Formats: sequence, C-alpha cells, structure tokens
Amino acid sequence: MVKQLIECVPNFSEGQRTDVIEAIVEPFRERKGCGLLDYRADKDHNRLVVSLAGESGPIQEAVLEAAKVAISRIDMERHRGGHPRVGAIDVIPFVPLQNMTMEECVELAHGFGRRYHEDTGVPVYFYEEAALKPERKRLEVIRKGQYEALKAEVTNPGRHPDVGEPKLHPSAGATVIGARKFLIAFNVNLGTNDIQVANEIARAIRASSGGLRHVKGIGLALESRGLVQVSMNIVDFEKNALYRVLELVRTEARRWGVPVVETEVYGMIPAAALLESASYYMQIANFDPKQVIELRLLQMLGDEDT
Amino acid sequence: MVKQLIECVPNFSEGQRTDVIEAIVEPFRERKGCGLLDYRADKDHNRLVVSLAGESGPIQEAVLEAAKVAISRIDMERHRGGHPRVGAIDVIPFVPLQNMTMEECVELAHGFGRRYHEDTGVPVYFYEEAALKPERKRLEVIRKGQYEALKAEVTNPGRHPDVGEPKLHPSAGATVIGARKFLIAFNVNLGTNDIQVANEIARAIRASSGGLRHVKGIGLALESRGLVQVSMNIVDFEKNALYRVLELVRTEARRWGVPVVETEVYGMIPAAALLESASYYMQIANFDPKQVIELRLLQMLGDEDT
Repeated sequence: MVKQLIECVPNFSEGQRTDVIEAIVEPFRERKGCGLLDYRADKDHNRLVVSLAGESGPIQEAVLEAAKVAISRIDMERHRGGHPRVGAIDVIPFVPLQNMTMEECVELAHGFGRRYHEDTGVPVYFYEEAALKPERKRLEVIRKGQYEALKAEVTNPGRHPDVGEPKLHPSAGATVIGARKFLIAFNVNLGTNDIQVANEIARAIRASSGGLRHVKGIGLALESRGLVQVSMNIVDFEKNALYRVLELVRTEARRWGVPVVETEVYGMIPAAALLESASYYMQIANFDPKQVIELRLLQMLGDEDT
Repeated sequence: MVKQLIECVPNFSEGQRTDVIEAIVEPFRERKGCGLLDYRADKDHNRLVVSLAGESGPIQEAVLEAAKVAISRIDMERHRGGHPRVGAIDVIPFVPLQNMTMEECVELAHGFGRRYHEDTGVPVYFYEEAALKPERKRLEVIRKGQYEALKAEVTNPGRHPDVGEPKLHPSAGATVIGARKFLIAFNVNLGTNDIQVANEIARAIRASSGGLRHVKGIGLALESRGLVQVSMNIVDFEKNALYRVLELVRTEARRWGVPVVETEVYGMIPAAALLESASYYMQIANFDPKQVIELRLLQMLGDEDT
C-alpha cells in the first residue's frame, strides 16, 4: 500500500513562557510517523507555530496530546499578543504532501475536528478547503474581533461553530481546523533603502491590488542591512509558480533601476516548487519529478514499509 | 543493520524495437530489493538506459537476467545508432548511494564482472573507479572506434579485455563494467541542423579538449527533429555545477547565433544538482536542502528503518 503523507502546522497561543512552549512541543518529539520539522515561538505575537510532516494517524494523535497540554496551560482570558487568535490552539491546518488528494485532506480535517471536540470540549470552526460555509474559507472572517468578540457573538447563528454548542471553551476559546495547500514564504531583497520601491513592487505583484491571484505581499525595511524587502506568501505555488513571481518582481525592480540583491525561502518548501523553477530557467523539457533520485527513494521506502 | 543502497544504470543497444525493450526491462519489474527508477529508449541513439536503485544482491540478479535477454535479441552486426557502443549490453556502472564506500562499490563491480563473463561468455572491460589499467578509467578509451573497430583490435594486447579471451562475443560484442560517482546525462538541443555547431560547442565545453574538468560531450544530430544536440555527461556535478555547464553552452551558442531550444535531463538526477541550479538562477541566499520537505521526510523514514 502507498503511504500517504501530510504536513500539519498547529498554531498555539503561547510565545513567551519557555516551559509551556517545551511542554506543548514534547508530544511531537521522537514519535514514529510524526516528524517535527520546525517550531518557532514569537514573543511579540505570543504565538507558537509547529511544523509537522508524516502520516496522518500519528500526527493526529500527537496534535491531540499537545492540544491537551495547551488547554491545561493557556488561559485565553489572560492572553495578550500581536497576532489575531480565537483560542489556545488557534488553528490546525492539514496540507496534503504525497499520495493524497485535497478531498482526502478535507475529510481528514473534518474527522479530526469532530474527534478533537469530543476529546477536549473545544468548539471547532472549519476553514479554507474544509469550510462548510463559503465565507468561512477565509480565516479572517472566522477570527473577526478575535477571542474577545467571538465569546459574545458565538451565540449569533452566523457565528455558531461547525462542531459543538454555540459557546466557547471557558479558557481555551475555539479552534479553527482546515485543509489547505502548501504555503511558501518567499522574500526578495532589493539594493536600495527606499521603502517606497518595495511598497510599489508589492502592490504591483500581489492579488489584493490586482497582481498575481495567489500571491500576498508587503514591503518591509531591513534597517540593519540598509535594504528593503518584498515579503511574500505564495498560497498556491502550482498556479503562481515561484519563477514567475520572481521574474515579475525583477521586471518591476528594473523600472526603479533597483537590483535584486538576493532572495530567501523562509521555512519549508516542497521540492516541486524548486524543480519547476529549475526547469524553467534551464529550459528542461518534459522533466518528471520521478527523475529525482531522492523523491523516488522516498516513494520506494514508503511503499516497502506498509 | 544499516541498509547499503546502490544505483546501477545498465545501457543496452536497443532503442527502437518496443518488444525487445520491454523484454529487457521485464526482469526489473516487481522485484524486491531492486527498484526500477526509470528506463528510457532513444530512437536516434538506438539505446536503452535503465536506472535501478536498491540492494546489490537483487540488482545483480536482475541485471544478469536482463543481459541474457539482450544477448538473445540484439545483434551488434546489425546495430546502428548515434551513440558510441561496443556491445549489446554496452555499460554497467555501479554507483554508491547510501552507507557504501566507493571502494566497496569497486569490489562489487569486479565480482559482478567475473560472474557476468562466466554466465554469458561476453568479455568484460573495467572502467572508471574499477579500472585495472589507468587509461581504462576513461570509457572513451575502451570504446575507441566502437564495436566495429574493437572487433578487430581486441587481439592487440593493449585492447585485451580484463575478463575473458581476446575476442568479442559474435553478436553481443563486449561489456564495460565499472564503479563511479553519480553521473548526470544532460543534453542541450540547438535550433539548427548544422552538426558542426554542436561539435564546436561540445569541443569548447568538454574536459578532453580543454573545457570543464568533469564534463564529457559530443555533438549529435537529432535527424527526426531537424535539430542538433550537445550531449553531455557531467561526471562530478558537485565540482561542475549544472547551471555553469548550461551557461557555458548558451555562451558558445550565441557565437553561432543559434538558440538553445530545450534541454533534457536524461535519466535520474540527484536533488542537490537541481537545487543548486535553482538557487543560482533565483539568487536564493543561504538555501539549506533541509528546507525541502521531501528531503526531510526521506531522512526521517531512513532513520526509522535502522
């Protein structure tokens, strides 16, 4: 049987207390079938982002365990932080990686959401591809007004949770669970300290102001380096290929006579995104990811195991 | 115990007759411990390249079986094709992939070569790391003049095989067996039918005529497409990066006013080669292969096994 692989990126509302962060991460360590790729706590956001990859069974078990730790240690009544949130376990997105369709991932999110509610009593909203109401595709709609507003408004039919009674958990709030594509964080650093240039380029290329459909972007100053950055999220790299995003930034930068100094892939990236871009620049015809020996070995090892 | 993994890339002199190609490939299918990564037949080259990865025992068994099929179906007296060759089974390189040294791989090649000759009667030359004479490190020295010349010259002491009597097999010629690093077959197709242009470019970029140290190259006509090709082997992609090879070809092609129409990665390629080239063209700073999700998964699965 073919092994299905997913990514899961649970976000917890704790980015300051080291002992709590370590206790939440503990269930993800040394666990067969659930690989801990990365975890990052941000003090200002007061938030912990964990990246996992592996098989859906072990990942779900580990996330449930970690959620119970978070519920026992985080009190949303006292939580303050710069990042929007509605619960101690704020969001849990599942991402199909290998041998899995988005539909299967949506099913997984729904099944997990029901079990999560049964086990913890925390009400659940489904978002992105797993949304049951069209407006809930967008996370910002579900999180509108954050924990503090949702506590009162959850009784309005339009804000009822998808799983659970219309009231929040007294200390853990609510959790937003979903399925989405892999998100790539991609930054382009420009050889100028003029933030206007980065802002103009971001405006030209991002969806919200009429650019590429699946790209979000802002301009940022990198003051310590005397550079500015176009900081982007590519939410569908299969439709807005990385090379196309970069070439559009390069095109816009030329208008300002500003060079691209370097780029940065922030965090994890699927092999396909880089392979497609390599194929573009190198004019490789009919390239098949199955030609990459590590990808084939991964497939073979996966097949042998089950 | 740690699993030793090798790659093996037998090349057969048949790229046209579908039934023969399928019969040769058959022993590699559904075989435990021997994964069929890829096989490609090229009509103009009249050649079949099979890529295998797995454990050395099962791979050797399967290659012997396939060789016997090739011997029974291919007659070198009637073979024509654009690629240099000396036998029905032309070359069999073994490549260490995981938990194996080059020295162990050389031993494996020598042992296999002796058994191969016993079983088939085909004389064997050892090349690259497995060469027993320094000049035979280079495949082109062994294949000089190809099958047609070797048939006569095999009686010269300098061209005696390393295993077997000094005469070729009457229909299957000779086989060159060796151990080497991972070899990337990379072709660049040019928008002209002037073979001179491909020859000149090959001359400019290959080691033997003063070009890049770890690149071999020849010009070939792709008659069915009206194009010519610079057909290259990159024998150490860590030292001669793929993008650098391509940019040198592009530079030389400009001299002739000839466009690069497309390129081709023929057979398997290690992820690192494409990631390095993607990083170059995209100016990605400080890129770490551990950021590629599939490479992390492979590492995790491999660790679990042992």
